[in-house]
Parts: sequence; structure tokens; C-alpha cells
Amino acid sequence: MDQTPGPAAPPPGGLGAPIRAGIPEHGRVPKYYAVKGRLEGLLDELGEGGVLPTERDLAARFEVARETLRQALRDLLIQGRIRRRGRSTVVAGPKLEQPLSLASYTEGVRRQGRIPGRTLIGLERFAADPVLAGQLGLAAGEEVWHLERVLLADGERVGLESTCLAVARVPALDREFDPGSSFYAFLREKAGVEFGAADERIETVLASPREALLIGTPPALPMLLLHRLTRDDAGVPLERVRSLYRGDRFSFTTRLEVD
Amino acid sequence: MDQTPGPAAPPPGGLGAPIRAGIPEHGRVPKYYAVKGRLEGLLDELGEGGVLPTERDLAARFEVARETLRQALRDLLIQGRIRRRGRSTVVAGPKLEQPLSLASYTEGVRRQGRIPGRTLIGLERFAADPVLAGQLGLAAGEEVWHLERVLLADGERVGLESTCLAVARVPALDREFDPGSSFYAFLREKAGVEFGAADERIETVLASPREALLIGTPPALPMLLLHRLTRDDAGVPLERVRSLYRGDRFSFTTRLEVD
Repeated sequence: MDQTPGPAAPPPGGLGAPIRAGIPEHGRVPKYYAVKGRLEGLLDELGEGGVLPTERDLAARFEVARETLRQALRDLLIQGRIRRRGRSTVVAGPKLEQPLSLASYTEGVRRQGRIPGRTLIGLERFAADPVLAGQLGLAAGEEVWHLERVLLADGERVGLESTCLAVARVPALDREFDPGSSFYAFLREKAGVEFGAADERIETVLASPREALLIGTPPALPMLLLHRLTRDDAGVPLERVRSLYRGDRFSFTTRLEVD
Repeated sequence: MDQTPGPAAPPPGGLGAPIRAGIPEHGRVPKYYAVKGRLEGLLDELGEGGVLPTERDLAARFEVARETLRQALRDLLIQGRIRRRGRSTVVAGPKLEQPLSLASYTEGVRRQGRIPGRTLIGLERFAADPVLAGQLGLAAGEEVWHLERVLLADGERVGLESTCLAVARVPALDREFDPGSSFYAFLREKAGVEFGAADERIETVLASPREALLIGTPPALPMLLLHRLTRDDAGVPLERVRSLYRGDRFSFTTRLEVD
């Protein structure tokens, strides 16, 4: 993937004068943003895993108020450039690049040399409300499974996956499925499901307090939310999935082909 | 797209007792979040374009402090459920659903019945730095165009698109291209370019102060950033694009096929 567009490539440096310009730019760079730029230089020097000096030391070094420094650090934290580790702050590694595909979470994470994991939050059965029933092609009131798991990468909680599908598809899910394993592998190998196409929608949202608690993120952290409706090879709706990923730890890649 | 996974479908309502549970849940719902839930009910009643009562009235109605109410409104604003219109706050429409495809921005927006537009920020030529040159398959120092435009939908600023490509590909870009028109149509029809595949990467980021100024958003608003590297039909790199979209106004859709 060496020719994938790189992260945050610098904008062109104004070597050429604008040939044409539309909207004139004005406005000043806020102080915290200038500090953030200098901090980014420091992060590059320290390298992944490097420990940042204390807030007090950094504020003194850049000759700014603690609050200004904190605002710059907050931005860097939300963007995933730095991470908290105990009481210290360290330079974060690059975001995981997860392919948008019907491959499972497991396979995507493994391909990047990380160890995938999942922790069960809950598995319950309930009667489908009319919206869900419509999406899954069921009658309202038909029973569905709801499987909810926290997603892990190298032992760190990075997302939350919530899957709904008809009980009739996999009646023994509660007895036969190991919630620490790949659900797609189970569907293929144990339930004899052949996958068809899926429609996916991706957006950015804030975590709810419950989600922030389960994933262990600050509540204001922007997340990436993927809605997926998967069909089997006969085109019949199979599952509705809602996957929430930490926006500071994940990006998604896809290949666009000419129509 | 009637069977696309719907926005924010309600989680299953606990009709069934958990069959299996992993992590126990605890933690209380913060007050602002409870208020947000009640506000969402009100937004549904008011419908798109409906005007919200004043903050003072809402705080009195829900019997909470103004600051608690404001936090709930801030969340709803970031999620795109409400919008500012002059001094009042109105119920926003659904997010635009833009397909992830090699179709231009223009075509995607038109398909949703909105009027696309673009405003030129600048067109300049400069010498490619080694990173950009590597991505575009050029020698460092070769000349590239940088085209930057604000993207509009129904006259509202919704994104910022920044494209770099070799001057050698389209030497007369500054004279022949109308920056209010589709760049892809220009490349196809005037420059004789045949598109190949593109690699795209999506992440969520905060707008920089400059970007927030150009798009006219509050600086803390989460944005969706798309990095794209497009090749021509011979597989030679054509352009590097960085497209920033308002996270409260856009989602992206794709269809996943079985490998």
C-alpha cells in the first residue's frame, strides 16, 4: 500500500504565486493552533511511543498559558497523534487502516499485524420492532438475536459491534457460538450461510455515554459509525450491523473502480 | 435505497433477558444526555425546518440549568440534528448520502436532488516536494497544479476539496478550466484522460482554523476526510485529492461485494 495517499501530507507551500484566486483568505491563526504545530514537530522528533514532557514543562518551553497548551493537546488526542498511558502522554502510532469489505474485523486487523479480539457484552433474543423487521425482511414480532461485542486490537478496546439477525437463521447461536471467535466464520462454517453483497454507510458521530463507557473513551471523542445490511447469496437480508470505531485509532480504505 | 440500514435505529429494548452477558454495564446516564433524549423527541415532533423554542424556555420546560441544556444542544448540533439559522435553531434534514465512487461530487449531490456548486479558493502551480512527487510518480521538483475549491450543496458550504496533479498532464488548466464546473468532466472531455481505479482512505478529523473559516463551521466540528489517489487507465498516478466534508451534513455509502 506504499502508494496509498499518505496521512496529512503538507499542503503546498506557496512556492508559486496563486494563478487564480477566488475567496480571499483572512483570519489569524489562533495561538493554540500555532502551539499544536510546534507540538507536532516535537512528536515527530520523539517518535512512536516517546514520552512527552509534562504540561508544565511544555507550557514553559512554548511560553504559553497552561490552558492554551491543553487545548492543543486535546486536539492532538482527538486526532490520535498522542495517547494517555497511565499518568504520562506518549506519541501514538498511525491509525489502523481497515479495509471496507465483507472480510471480518478479525481478518482486517490481522492483516495489519495486530492481534484482534472481542469481548462479549451481551447476547439476547427479542421480538423485532417494525423497523428492524422491515430491514431484515421479517414479520414484526419475529424473534431476533442481538449480539453485542467490544472489539479489541492488541488488547486495547477500539470499537463496539452490534449485530441483529433472525433467530430462525441460527436457532442455536447461544449454545454453539463462541463469542470470542469470528461471527462470520461461524455463519459460514456452522450455519451454512453464503454471503451476498452488503450495503454500508459510514458517518462520524459522538459516542453516547454508554458507548464511551464500554469502549473506554472520553465522551467527546469523534467515532466512525458503520451501518451495514448484509444479504445472503439469494439476496435475502441476513443481518443488520452497527459498528462503532474509535476515530482516533481507525481509518477505512477502499478501492474505487470505474463503473 | 429503501433497505439501506436506517439512521440511528433504536437499540433493542431489552424485551428479552440477556441469554449471555460478558462485561457488566454500570454507570449512570448523565443529566445532559437524558435532556438530549427528550430534545430528540421534540425534534421528531417539530419535523425538518421546525424552529426550536429559546434556550431559556427549553431549560424551564426540562427543569435543568442552562449549561446542561447547552451541552445537549451542542451534541445535537455536532451530530447534524439541528442547525443554526440566523438567531434561531431549526431541525435539520437528514445527512446527505454520498456514494463512495469515481463519480464526481457534482453527480453524487445531483442524484440526491440537491444543487451542487463549487467556489474557487485558489489555483496555483508549484514544485512537487519528494512525498507528493513519489505519490504522483514524478521527479521531485516537477511542476504540479494545486486546485482548491469549496464544495456547496444548495448554496451551503459543505466541504473543501484540494487536488494536486502534474502540470504536464493539463498544461492549460489555468486558461481552459472553469473552476465552477466539474473537474472530472474537464479531465475526460478536454484533457482526454481515461480514469482507472482509485485508492481511497476515510477518517474523521477536526477542521483546522483555516478550513473551518473557509467552510464556515465551528472549529470543534468533526469532519470526514477522504484521501484519494486516482490512476489513469494505464495505471499511472493521475491526482492526489484531499476532500474534507462536514461530518454533520454528510455520510458515505458503498456496496460491498463478496471477494
